[in-house]
Amino acid sequence: MKPGAPPMKHYLQFKDLRAEEYAYLFERTRIIKRRFKNYERYQPLADRTLAMIFEKASTRTRVSFEAGMYQMGGSVVHLTTGDSQLGRAEPIADSARVISRMCDLVMIRTFEQERITAFAAHSRVPVINGLTNEYHPCQILADLYTYIEHRGPGGVGAGAVECLRGKVVAWVGDGNNMAHTWLQAAEILGFTVHVSTPGGYEVDPAVAGVSDRSCWRVFRDPMDACRGADLVTTDVWTSMGYEAENEERRRAFADWCVDAEMMAAARPDALFMHCLPAHRGEEVAAEVIDGPQSVVWDEAENRLHVQKALMEYLLLGRIG
Amino acid sequence: MKPGAPPMKHYLQFKDLRAEEYAYLFERTRIIKRRFKNYERYQPLADRTLAMIFEKASTRTRVSFEAGMYQMGGSVVHLTTGDSQLGRAEPIADSARVISRMCDLVMIRTFEQERITAFAAHSRVPVINGLTNEYHPCQILADLYTYIEHRGPGGVGAGAVECLRGKVVAWVGDGNNMAHTWLQAAEILGFTVHVSTPGGYEVDPAVAGVSDRSCWRVFRDPMDACRGADLVTTDVWTSMGYEAENEERRRAFADWCVDAEMMAAARPDALFMHCLPAHRGEEVAAEVIDGPQSVVWDEAENRLHVQKALMEYLLLGRIG
Amino acid sequence: MKPGAPPMKHYLQFKDLRAEEYAYLFERTRIIKRRFKNYERYQPLADRTLAMIFEKASTRTRVSFEAGMYQMGGSVVHLTTGDSQLGRAEPIADSARVISRMCDLVMIRTFEQERITAFAAHSRVPVINGLTNEYHPCQILADLYTYIEHRGPGGVGAGAVECLRGKVVAWVGDGNNMAHTWLQAAEILGFTVHVSTPGGYEVDPAVAGVSDRSCWRVFRDPMDACRGADLVTTDVWTSMGYEAENEERRRAFADWCVDAEMMAAARPDALFMHCLPAHRGEEVAAEVIDGPQSVVWDEAENRLHVQKALMEYLLLGRIG
Repeated sequence: MKPGAPPMKHYLQFKDLRAEEYAYLFERTRIIKRRFKNYERYQPLADRTLAMIFEKASTRTRVSFEAGMYQMGGSVVHLTTGDSQLGRAEPIADSARVISRMCDLVMIRTFEQERITAFAAHSRVPVINGLTNEYHPCQILADLYTYIEHRGPGGVGAGAVECLRGKVVAWVGDGNNMAHTWLQAAEILGFTVHVSTPGGYEVDPAVAGVSDRSCWRVFRDPMDACRGADLVTTDVWTSMGYEAENEERRRAFADWCVDAEMMAAARPDALFMHCLPAHRGEEVAAEVIDGPQSVVWDEAENRLHVQKALMEYLLLGRIG
Repeated sequence: MKPGAPPMKHYLQFKDLRAEEYAYLFERTRIIKRRFKNYERYQPLADRTLAMIFEKASTRTRVSFEAGMYQMGGSVVHLTTGDSQLGRAEPIADSARVISRMCDLVMIRTFEQERITAFAAHSRVPVINGLTNEYHPCQILADLYTYIEHRGPGGVGAGAVECLRGKVVAWVGDGNNMAHTWLQAAEILGFTVHVSTPGGYEVDPAVAGVSDRSCWRVFRDPMDACRGADLVTTDVWTSMGYEAENEERRRAFADWCVDAEMMAAARPDALFMHCLPAHRGEEVAAEVIDGPQSVVWDEAENRLHVQKALMEYLLLGRIG
Repeated sequence: MKPGAPPMKHYLQFKDLRAEEYAYLFERTRIIKRRFKNYERYQPLADRTLAMIFEKASTRTRVSFEAGMYQMGGSVVHLTTGDSQLGRAEPIADSARVISRMCDLVMIRTFEQERITAFAAHSRVPVINGLTNEYHPCQILADLYTYIEHRGPGGVGAGAVECLRGKVVAWVGDGNNMAHTWLQAAEILGFTVHVSTPGGYEVDPAVAGVSDRSCWRVFRDPMDACRGADLVTTDVWTSMGYEAENEERRRAFADWCVDAEMMAAARPDALFMHCLPAHRGEEVAAEVIDGPQSVVWDEAENRLHVQKALMEYLLLGRIG
């Protein structure tokens, strides 16, 4: 670590940070987003280099991290497994040792969580999970910020993270990395997740790693999960890497389409979120994702802003 | 759009701008090029991010836009369909909504014009056509600037765009995106295009979309097209994406090779241009492209300078 | 070349620079590395653009050049043969003409040395060899700097390059691009290389191009090569591009594994280096590469620092 660097922290899963750190991150996000929208130059990461390692394709993660780093004054080296050698020609530990000698921060989008854990164990610099089979913490960071922005008292402000407490988030669909991350967020920030998945696609409590079972409830019927929800959210039926199961999943998930009826079961002011890309007519009806309760474009944009706050925090610690 | 941004304009085909806007762009190009050559730092696009989306391979377009944006102080996110999902996993409209929330400007190199039109329709930020099956406006921008630089009174200066009026440009070869764009430029800037293509490879008036038929004339024999021309220009026989027709095209285009004889039919001070890559011995003889009338390397370099002026104009409007 | 530019120099093989230029480069590396470690901003290459052309995959070369250029204030355009057209759709000479009109410096990682020589012959700007089948000068630059850093009198300091004089470097393994470059370095900087390769994998004196045969000695037995060595170094048995020979090479190289016994034959303070990626149990034993004499991670990091000094030198000449 260089002089003045904060103690090293990785961000490999949502529970790597505490509630007060999230409150801080959301407050920083608000400030960084406002400055950016007003074209006030703010380049605290000048001289810093982010290495982005993609073992899975991406648009949103790619653009939000890369544009975000540049906009904060830093620079980016974008590596894909097509042109690098992560874990192929050499052990992941060796790649971590080398890359972390040359860059200040590493973002990895990969398959098994154990790959990113192995990298982080041998890295001299902070590592961020840009998506694994198990977790997607940066997306949930954006989702929570978007909720606060739309439903917090006076929008985002000091203490606005408190508005999450006691809320109900309905997760409708695959018990995947998004679902596991929502469970971790619920435990840390004090809300409840109503989970409804088809049989065989349940969340895995061991993966979620949540000790407080009161922060989530399982529903067989997605309508029941949506009842009284403050936020309804879903994901594609077939995530990247599971394409071979496509037909089987289409049959299994047929009743897990978030439509107007499900939204009507939720609270009248409920929001709809989706981490995108979306398949209208499959996991979500067009009338929902393109309707007035949907905040999916704000949600996508907020990836940019929350990740700037996250990178600032990992590299510089608390500001001021 | 952010505070202070000019009214949003896309640059999807040559006729998206008017004659006086081209006069302005060429004057800005002159200033930007001179400063750059003298190492006077000029970074008006600091804090701005260009997203470049490539669905077709490229060297010139890639380097000229990417280097150009960096040299103007901005940054670039380079997406290819290999690592992004444009129109594959989600509708183009959704990609446009997301990317235009995170970046300030988008350049797209793709297949059908309707793909870029669909993107632009849902983009919050200006979109530039970096090449489609139908048009290649940025290349013609560079070609016109190069002509003015070599043949304008006193080189490029205020009003130098007037030197194009009444000139004759001979297009020898495929009636492709370059040819269509030349026709649009002729109508807007007051010159005439002599077009000679093999049978079956004619320009499509509906694609060119030119209302004034007096700005172009068709010749069966390429020698006739070149007669009296101020500029002779061509392109490869087989553009990217048409490789399957390679053999058939070689036979059809055999007489459409720009050689010394054709150049001799043109005016003595005629220039030769080619958007590159060139295949010597096919569409152009080595003695022509490597000869004294050829300005192909200036033409390639000027992509860099005209596109800087274009990006500045789309993002900041008129300077001063 | 632009105003104030030094006379143009390429760096295509190690012998392209003289001993006093290396002394200068190592001294600059020391200064640049120290400033970087202390977060003193130093951006002498602002406004300069590096084109990186990869025809072979890379992690270390990619990250070290790209991060290095950004950290010096410049920008980078990264081209791979997947998305460019180097030598495929057009002659290399044409690519060189175009790219060197838009960028200030070019780094190429390719196959035959003649490809990079052809590019340089038509480039207006300096070209750096980022690895060819024949040479790897940037790696040896890093290796030499690392040796001086660890064994120079008082670390790296003015005249520290002299500490290389008379030293013995043992090269154990394939007579490849690294070996040829070591021979060139030995002749220029006054040390001796002990080379031990399996039969059929000898260094090629014509490729090395070394006129003074006293700077290298050939040993049949790798133990003999290591005897009295100040530095023991090796490379993978099968370099990229030779994978078809994998099995044959495994048999041929079985006795060319740098293990504790070989290191014991070297001087007690001998260092171990490897340009990575490493295959533990093949060309090097884990106890050696992960042991106290190994400086492989410093060696990898120093790619970043020496290449910054090299780029500064090629673009700006001597500073001060």
